[in-house]
Amino acid sequence: MTPRRGDKKRDLPVSAGPRPSIRLITLLTDFGLADYFVGALKGVILSINPSLSIVDLSHEIPPQDVAAGAFTLMASYQSFPSETVHVAVVDPGVGSDRRPILVRAGNHFFVGPDNGIFSYIYEKETRHKTFHLTNKKYFRHPVSATFHGRDIFAPVAAALSAGVKPAEFGPEISDEKRLPSLNSVKQTRGKVKGRIIHIDRFGNCITNITRSVLPLEMENGARLLINGETVRSFRRFFTDSRDDSGGSEKLFAVWGSAGFLEIAAMNRSAAKRLRAKPGQAVVLRLKGE
Amino acid sequence: MTPRRGDKKRDLPVSAGPRPSIRLITLLTDFGLADYFVGALKGVILSINPSLSIVDLSHEIPPQDVAAGAFTLMASYQSFPSETVHVAVVDPGVGSDRRPILVRAGNHFFVGPDNGIFSYIYEKETRHKTFHLTNKKYFRHPVSATFHGRDIFAPVAAALSAGVKPAEFGPEISDEKRLPSLNSVKQTRGKVKGRIIHIDRFGNCITNITRSVLPLEMENGARLLINGETVRSFRRFFTDSRDDSGGSEKLFAVWGSAGFLEIAAMNRSAAKRLRAKPGQAVVLRLKGE
Amino acid sequence: MTPRRGDKKRDLPVSAGPRPSIRLITLLTDFGLADYFVGALKGVILSINPSLSIVDLSHEIPPQDVAAGAFTLMASYQSFPSETVHVAVVDPGVGSDRRPILVRAGNHFFVGPDNGIFSYIYEKETRHKTFHLTNKKYFRHPVSATFHGRDIFAPVAAALSAGVKPAEFGPEISDEKRLPSLNSVKQTRGKVKGRIIHIDRFGNCITNITRSVLPLEMENGARLLINGETVRSFRRFFTDSRDDSGGSEKLFAVWGSAGFLEIAAMNRSAAKRLRAKPGQAVVLRLKGE
Repeated sequence: MTPRRGDKKRDLPVSAGPRPSIRLITLLTDFGLADYFVGALKGVILSINPSLSIVDLSHEIPPQDVAAGAFTLMASYQSFPSETVHVAVVDPGVGSDRRPILVRAGNHFFVGPDNGIFSYIYEKETRHKTFHLTNKKYFRHPVSATFHGRDIFAPVAAALSAGVKPAEFGPEISDEKRLPSLNSVKQTRGKVKGRIIHIDRFGNCITNITRSVLPLEMENGARLLINGETVRSFRRFFTDSRDDSGGSEKLFAVWGSAGFLEIAAMNRSAAKRLRAKPGQAVVLRLKGE
Repeated sequence: MTPRRGDKKRDLPVSAGPRPSIRLITLLTDFGLADYFVGALKGVILSINPSLSIVDLSHEIPPQDVAAGAFTLMASYQSFPSETVHVAVVDPGVGSDRRPILVRAGNHFFVGPDNGIFSYIYEKETRHKTFHLTNKKYFRHPVSATFHGRDIFAPVAAALSAGVKPAEFGPEISDEKRLPSLNSVKQTRGKVKGRIIHIDRFGNCITNITRSVLPLEMENGARLLINGETVRSFRRFFTDSRDDSGGSEKLFAVWGSAGFLEIAAMNRSAAKRLRAKPGQAVVLRLKGE
Repeated sequence: MTPRRGDKKRDLPVSAGPRPSIRLITLLTDFGLADYFVGALKGVILSINPSLSIVDLSHEIPPQDVAAGAFTLMASYQSFPSETVHVAVVDPGVGSDRRPILVRAGNHFFVGPDNGIFSYIYEKETRHKTFHLTNKKYFRHPVSATFHGRDIFAPVAAALSAGVKPAEFGPEISDEKRLPSLNSVKQTRGKVKGRIIHIDRFGNCITNITRSVLPLEMENGARLLINGETVRSFRRFFTDSRDDSGGSEKLFAVWGSAGFLEIAAMNRSAAKRLRAKPGQAVVLRLKGE
């Protein structure tokens, strides 16, 4: 087991000599797996710190879809050990004046562009700190205008993992760019208006509705409205047979593994069936309303 | 080189103190690579045992296709070192009463749902042992109803790799669920009836016919019948020029790298050409029949 | 940090006893991620040298597209540390008499078929050495006729990483197969004729035109002709607002991260817009011509 280091030890000067380094870097990008981009990131990281383990969160974020990247990162970072460095590169503004940043939040580190991709981390970890990456000493040179993943984010993450202090990379800032809140559901009497925040590989439609607005005891009789369809069945798991009315193609709601209410269909894509897209409104009506 | 441990050493009590742990875990799922699911598995595993290497067998098993997962696992596990832990999560019944299991077979470990995904391992390794995972101490809590990969299989595999004995996880069972046998070919005089068990990325159609039913000396003059087409050409490798009749689009049979007879076409997909699907019948006729 | 070894130390006899081994192997194939092929490669490598880190460059090279594999390898190998072993398996001629080879070039190693896949490495690293892999001692037996990645290239790469000298694997050769040169642009007065060498995930069309034929000071007024369309806008980066004529769908040229001139379109695929394909001609006209 690797010893976990508290923030105190991290604050030792870099020159303080050998100390246990961070073991783990994760990568989240929209690069896909057909090109050399992901390989280049890994090569740069391992050139600086060869003892790291690198884990792919996903490289199949839809091109330039910052919100999809933000969701995927939010849904998985807590599965990783403290002190993991998460590099996120969905970066349509690469080369422009959008800032490169490093975020320290909830005992994890996050490195990427300041375009909202860490929004949901800020929401979950309210005591975070953000640093503007300005110290070119830690960049790969020459810095290209189109691939800051390779030239800024990867080398900064590797340097961080090797023991460089966050404040070494640049000044602290507090005006990070943010996406619309994940938790922005609108509650009126007996009614909750939310939205689809993600559609997964199986076609499950993940809403931003959490247990806080639909307690277990109120599930009974509740219904979800989306695209003119009504979902009346709430299941505990996908093949739950408590209800078997409506045939095998029926839509149902289920509490997903990221903590949100999902709309699913057995053996097919609920998203296709509903022609649902991320961002789309969904209304939850409680019993009798 | 890591010392290989025999079963004797494995049977030391967990409390026996530090000892060499397992180095390698493989993952096989139908999760795809666009979502956070695979990342979450890896985070959970590395949180428990940070020194592990994790290798992806595939995450592109067609959704809920247990037989495809079983084939892919069977075709690759023997390439890995002894004592590797293989985690397989193609799990349409997640949350239902299908059992979570751990299998000890052929000096490898297998962790996943009891839905037949290890069937072909049982066929190859007849002296295996299976354990029902009931000891909640090794699960991640709370256990969700929809993501046992993260909450049961990953933490159990990591605990196993860290030295926990198989019997610690739950009682031994012997009534594992099995898919139809991979080897169920029907032989009559001069004729073998088999089936397509897999179609690979290149469109090659892998049958369940092995060398035992078509010895080398009987290849000459044999032919394969599938979907109304007859394949008469047997090649040693894809660009074998022993036969060049029939043009470049001709179908031919070749012994594939997993030990089965495959139907292929040069520079195109045999599966598309034949409109072939997994499960489909294929008939082998020996010379003169 | 791992000590870097110079060529001198590498030339010690294998029998010289334990010495630091290579840490890193990269894999580039056209195997895709749905089958067991990549897993099998990794299993074989880790069975021989369990302490290696394996990095995937890409497994989504279009099936049998040797030139696409050559481009991807060329664009990323320099991001990796010296002494990395790069295994490249895009191998339509597997089983035929095409030679398996090992290349020592620019402080890296390359293992794969002699079908041109290392062409662009030879162009960049003119003082390379190539060895024909003939020593069956380092192969996995039996050697299949269809999967030399698993049976020849993976075990040779692992043995190399464990300290076996290049000359141990077979005799040196100098007549390697080569693809048409990447740098073959045709220059006449004020005009450069090149070609599209790659199309990436975002639909950017990468040409083989480099800074050497279009210096910065000549960008102004230059234009690119392709498929009957003319690209007049040169940008420093994708969202560069120096020019905003022509609407958001306008095509523009930008210097890509691999050092080549690319044709891109904002928020859409330039390749689709132009119906461009790899190999296609592109003409650069300098100002006033």
